[in-house]
Amino acid sequence: MFQGVVKRLCFSPNSAVSLLCARHCCRKTHKKLRISEAFSSQLGANVTVQGWVRSARAQKVNVFLHVNDGSSLQSLQVVAGAELNDPLLTFGSAVEVSGILQESPHEKQPLELQADSIRVIGECDPVDFPFKVKKRHGLEYIRQFPHLRCRTNAFSSLLRIRSEATSAIHSYFKDNGFVQIHTPIITSNDCEGAGELFQVEPAGADEHFFSVPAFLTVSGQLHLEATAGAFSKVYTFGPTFRAENSQSRRHLAEFYMVEAEISFTQSMEDLTKVMEDMFRSATEHVLARCVEDVDLFHRHVTPGHRVFLSFVLLSSLRITYTEAVDILTRSSEQFAFPSDWGCDLKTEHEKYLVKHCGNVPVFVTDYPYDLKPFYARDNQDGPRHTAAAVDLLVPGVGELCGGSLREERLSVLRARLEQLGLEDAYSWYLDLRRFGSAPHGGFGLGFERYLQCLLGVDNIKDVIPFPRFSRSCLL
Amino acid sequence: MFQGVVKRLCFSPNSAVSLLCARHCCRKTHKKLRISEAFSSQLGANVTVQGWVRSARAQKVNVFLHVNDGSSLQSLQVVAGAELNDPLLTFGSAVEVSGILQESPHEKQPLELQADSIRVIGECDPVDFPFKVKKRHGLEYIRQFPHLRCRTNAFSSLLRIRSEATSAIHSYFKDNGFVQIHTPIITSNDCEGAGELFQVEPAGADEHFFSVPAFLTVSGQLHLEATAGAFSKVYTFGPTFRAENSQSRRHLAEFYMVEAEISFTQSMEDLTKVMEDMFRSATEHVLARCVEDVDLFHRHVTPGHRVFLSFVLLSSLRITYTEAVDILTRSSEQFAFPSDWGCDLKTEHEKYLVKHCGNVPVFVTDYPYDLKPFYARDNQDGPRHTAAAVDLLVPGVGELCGGSLREERLSVLRARLEQLGLEDAYSWYLDLRRFGSAPHGGFGLGFERYLQCLLGVDNIKDVIPFPRFSRSCLL
Repeated sequence: MFQGVVKRLCFSPNSAVSLLCARHCCRKTHKKLRISEAFSSQLGANVTVQGWVRSARAQKVNVFLHVNDGSSLQSLQVVAGAELNDPLLTFGSAVEVSGILQESPHEKQPLELQADSIRVIGECDPVDFPFKVKKRHGLEYIRQFPHLRCRTNAFSSLLRIRSEATSAIHSYFKDNGFVQIHTPIITSNDCEGAGELFQVEPAGADEHFFSVPAFLTVSGQLHLEATAGAFSKVYTFGPTFRAENSQSRRHLAEFYMVEAEISFTQSMEDLTKVMEDMFRSATEHVLARCVEDVDLFHRHVTPGHRVFLSFVLLSSLRITYTEAVDILTRSSEQFAFPSDWGCDLKTEHEKYLVKHCGNVPVFVTDYPYDLKPFYARDNQDGPRHTAAAVDLLVPGVGELCGGSLREERLSVLRARLEQLGLEDAYSWYLDLRRFGSAPHGGFGLGFERYLQCLLGVDNIKDVIPFPRFSRSCLL
Repeated sequence: MFQGVVKRLCFSPNSAVSLLCARHCCRKTHKKLRISEAFSSQLGANVTVQGWVRSARAQKVNVFLHVNDGSSLQSLQVVAGAELNDPLLTFGSAVEVSGILQESPHEKQPLELQADSIRVIGECDPVDFPFKVKKRHGLEYIRQFPHLRCRTNAFSSLLRIRSEATSAIHSYFKDNGFVQIHTPIITSNDCEGAGELFQVEPAGADEHFFSVPAFLTVSGQLHLEATAGAFSKVYTFGPTFRAENSQSRRHLAEFYMVEAEISFTQSMEDLTKVMEDMFRSATEHVLARCVEDVDLFHRHVTPGHRVFLSFVLLSSLRITYTEAVDILTRSSEQFAFPSDWGCDLKTEHEKYLVKHCGNVPVFVTDYPYDLKPFYARDNQDGPRHTAAAVDLLVPGVGELCGGSLREERLSVLRARLEQLGLEDAYSWYLDLRRFGSAPHGGFGLGFERYLQCLLGVDNIKDVIPFPRFSRSCLL
């Protein structure tokens, strides 16, 4: 059955690496390493690295290059005899360098590569290339080049941090027994806030592809609640969408949310503790793993933010909405929007509250019932009627997380949905309360806002690889 | 500045847990545990568990319950005196049980809970509840209840496996130095295959929200290539979309793809080794971590699949497209579609090839140039002109991964884009070759097909929490 034309390959651990090295060794007797690996290699090792030139400087006797392959912020210094110089060794060109790792005379770098061969793999015309050697381009400038900006120090650091923060959040939930759920992106279910929904149909369609109108999700919460009724602890981490017609520094049409639902949650405290733990755990993880990259931001992009952040990590406060309104009412600040009981807190109010409370994270709980969606649990209090909802406000950013205990009582939920005329649309959601309902709660964290809080970056477009917003969808 | 209305909370490790326990201990002197934790707890411990009743059986002296909270497939057996019986203890109801962990007389379970209190938290009418106690419902039946099917054994196992497989794939890439990139969901860039694109606009809009037509991504590859030019090794794992008008067992409108791009990839072998390593590493991880859950599928849902899978993990084969066509031409099989050189391989061909090769994964490389998209690297051979593209075919599923070396040569790529009239649309993509181009390659893996291969599940709708396909977008 098995014919001669095919050759059998066996799976073996690290076969890719060993194959590659074997081939390389025959050819060159140099071990191919990533630059982050080279930094922890032994002096005297024969190695080959591949990457992009970050600077090139020719002297009489020697050529000096800095080569970066994105595995770390730090570039590897390459020293070569002048005979290896090449006019194509320009800023941005792709190169392969082989040589011996040796001690560096410079304190700032642990070692350097004494090259015995340098090969230009891909040229880069320094006139046309939008980034210039040794120049620190602003975030706004590099934003014009979404396909190239990851080649700058600042944005490559940002994306390494984003990757590590993603990993840290997954780790937090995994370590705490949560099941990850891929909640759907396309949904027929987003009745609330219909004005800001993106609708989805095949290009040029004249009837609904899904038989019903379908939208991009604004939150995975309701679907997550369905699965919390089986796994107790679930989370989702994925893209969400708002068709908000805004050019502000605070809004994107496509952004990432981390959302969690926890069954058998009995109090607001149960919930805020998870929010707090996740925030702290992820932040400590990133600060420990991305020292150089975070440092670049805290030194050069947003000076002073490190001190600010250490304060944020120290403690948190909890106040009720009613207490928040008291604080706002008693302040001498002039607000553009009203801050009476029953009004929603605006960004200006949130910023004032955080500052007032000493620039630490502030949980605001128990919002007016009428401000919150149907799923928020009715506190059944009065005369100021509240729901068990919570927002986490952080310095510089404002609202970072929003959550609530969910209305688990079938009769209460049904009455509210009836009132809103949504009973039929949400009959499946009522089912979750008809069959083995349990007290539960959950929250969502805006991942880009989290990164802004961590790094002090002012514009949300600078913390996502390819920002999408009103009138802009580059690439 | 800091007023009396707020109370200060300090972050401390595990504060959520200790607070919870402290409060619990005062109230009940029972430690609240998840059921998976209870199984590894000491005999004699006073514990409280919360979950859903999977079976309830009242005898003269005792009541027996099985309680499951989704932390594992296995339920905890609860034994209580008949006085704790309650007619509301039905299949599907939510309960809180406190008592003492004791040795179980049954071999199948390590321990059981001798209850001293049972509280029904949420009722479940067994007549209305679509799943019945001790009945093994088929996957097709439970698919009708997307909001409830995670409460069945089979689908809860599936979602735990899906969560673990997701984690395994992230781990593979992280351990191998890849940076995770959130490639965009909304894109202005998907010119190829325009017939199957979903278009995105705000509901009721009369002009383009993004100023240009925008679509749901069919692949993150091109954006990933942009970042591979900075980090060398990148991957993305997220939803992708096809507006394919198909009701088949093989297609979804929304599904998950794992995509990787690797700079300085010099040969097809470099690429297939990464595909192979990822597949093997993730699979071994899942088989080791989800023993019970995988076992449920391999025993009850798809008997015999374990043997099959062990064979799949043993080895792989590599053949060229030309060799594949030779095999098909020489076979005595009657195919519905032609299998001449230059024709695309159809599912029937893929299945035949895999079977012919001994039911192991088969890499098919070097497809006809004209069959492959503009970005596939031209092998510049002849007279049968091929591109350096590869598909990985696996038993039972057919195509699991597709990849290629990418055309990194500016002049070659530009000529092809000009020929297709796409030079302007892809000028940014050409830029990646103008500035420090490097040989690179990448691939995409269909995550749902991977789960089908792992578990032997026949219908793709049964391996995703909320399936979306032509004429169906439930919830």
